[in-house]
Amino acid sequence: MISVGTHIESFPNANCLSRNFLIHHSSNRYKCQYPIKPTLPAVGGFEGVGEVLEVGHRVTNVKPGDKVISNTATLGSWRTHLVCNSSAVRTLPEGTPLLFAATVRVNMSTAYRLLQDFEDLQPGDCVIQNAANSGAGQAVIQIAAARGVNTINIVRDRPDIEDLRSYLQGLGATIVTTESELRQNEKSIMQDVPKPKLALNAVSGKSCFVLLKQLQPKRTMVTYGGMSRQPVMVPTSSLIFSDIKVRGYWMSRWHEETATDSK
Amino acid sequence: MISVGTHIESFPNANCLSRNFLIHHSSNRYKCQYPIKPTLPAVGGFEGVGEVLEVGHRVTNVKPGDKVISNTATLGSWRTHLVCNSSAVRTLPEGTPLLFAATVRVNMSTAYRLLQDFEDLQPGDCVIQNAANSGAGQAVIQIAAARGVNTINIVRDRPDIEDLRSYLQGLGATIVTTESELRQNEKSIMQDVPKPKLALNAVSGKSCFVLLKQLQPKRTMVTYGGMSRQPVMVPTSSLIFSDIKVRGYWMSRWHEETATDSK
Repeated sequence: MISVGTHIESFPNANCLSRNFLIHHSSNRYKCQYPIKPTLPAVGGFEGVGEVLEVGHRVTNVKPGDKVISNTATLGSWRTHLVCNSSAVRTLPEGTPLLFAATVRVNMSTAYRLLQDFEDLQPGDCVIQNAANSGAGQAVIQIAAARGVNTINIVRDRPDIEDLRSYLQGLGATIVTTESELRQNEKSIMQDVPKPKLALNAVSGKSCFVLLKQLQPKRTMVTYGGMSRQPVMVPTSSLIFSDIKVRGYWMSRWHEETATDSK
Repeated sequence: MISVGTHIESFPNANCLSRNFLIHHSSNRYKCQYPIKPTLPAVGGFEGVGEVLEVGHRVTNVKPGDKVISNTATLGSWRTHLVCNSSAVRTLPEGTPLLFAATVRVNMSTAYRLLQDFEDLQPGDCVIQNAANSGAGQAVIQIAAARGVNTINIVRDRPDIEDLRSYLQGLGATIVTTESELRQNEKSIMQDVPKPKLALNAVSGKSCFVLLKQLQPKRTMVTYGGMSRQPVMVPTSSLIFSDIKVRGYWMSRWHEETATDSK
């Protein structure tokens, strides 16, 4: 725990004032489908980076000029200026690119933890994911590639599939495929990669069947999104006979439960 | 490992000859939906109890008169007599009732392991299950009751629901309800029991929603059957926001992986 003084009302100057939030958000939050519901009226925006302009005289964890990101999911980054308790933000290393800084808290961190917390991935192992061209999906590709871990990346059918394939392969993707390609040419597509040790699902519905069909027995499918708006569907046989583990991951919970140094 | 000699062909008398198998089986096996497929022609039957009539002269683990059950899922218990390797059976304690003996290997053992292997259940805790009047379900009720663990037991709508309710309550069930009753009177039905720490699913499909709605966050739903012939369906929010773990259990795998003393 870091002691960061009291609320703004106690200080003659702002406890912490930051500006220039860049924005990224999940639209589901604004459809009231998110379990974090700030007190209204509220400012939207999960992610963003700010620059500290002024601090109260008891504040030691940040200083003017620091680039900071939110420590909480309810800070509201769609704004030009913010006055808040200094414990609500954390300082980034100097020189962190702004675009990276503004998006690191959710997508990139999610990708990192998905690869870290569920299966012991070694170089040469393989991960399969859907929504592979999402922000988190692209981060999964890059982090996995940096570790020598293969990725099988499922994206939706589209006219410009070859462009997307090239782009994701440029990030380090081992295989980029659509569900229909995989159904038609499974054997040739999968011939040079080992069976995946981990499946990452951000689509749900029947897309889970595609992931689970490839996954090694006794391994884990982690759901971190449900873009199809369908429930996660798992063949009973995958659970009973293949001993697949089905889990979920939520970056906000990780921040809440694990990042104790920010409290 | 127990060394039990060689195959029957090496012995002048049968290695192990047993009779009077009682029968219980899962019909799915005979629809070729089971991953254990014995070499044909084969004798059906998962469970049963036999009496040893004769043993080969090197056999030490069983003796004539012993009551034995199968050590493997492929022994085939729908028969009056069987000649097999003595390692294929295990002896039961003297005085074990025949009906219990004939069914202990699958349903009762499944119930025991479901309550033992997934969540740490203490007296006063609560388990929710569907297919509660199945063989395994009834065993869950009895084992849980013996441990002071509450059970919420979901059964299908039927004209004689009160008879079934009385019967299962007589076995130790805390609550016996149908899905429709639970939908209509959830608050009053659930008011005197804590939220379940464990959900046991043998139905799958949307029946999972009913279990998951009651389950404590961060706890486990274990699937050991799929009588609806539907996939296991899990709201994305149960995985992401409630951190529910979805697992499977198969008694045959447990026998295969864990019961090493029988090999």
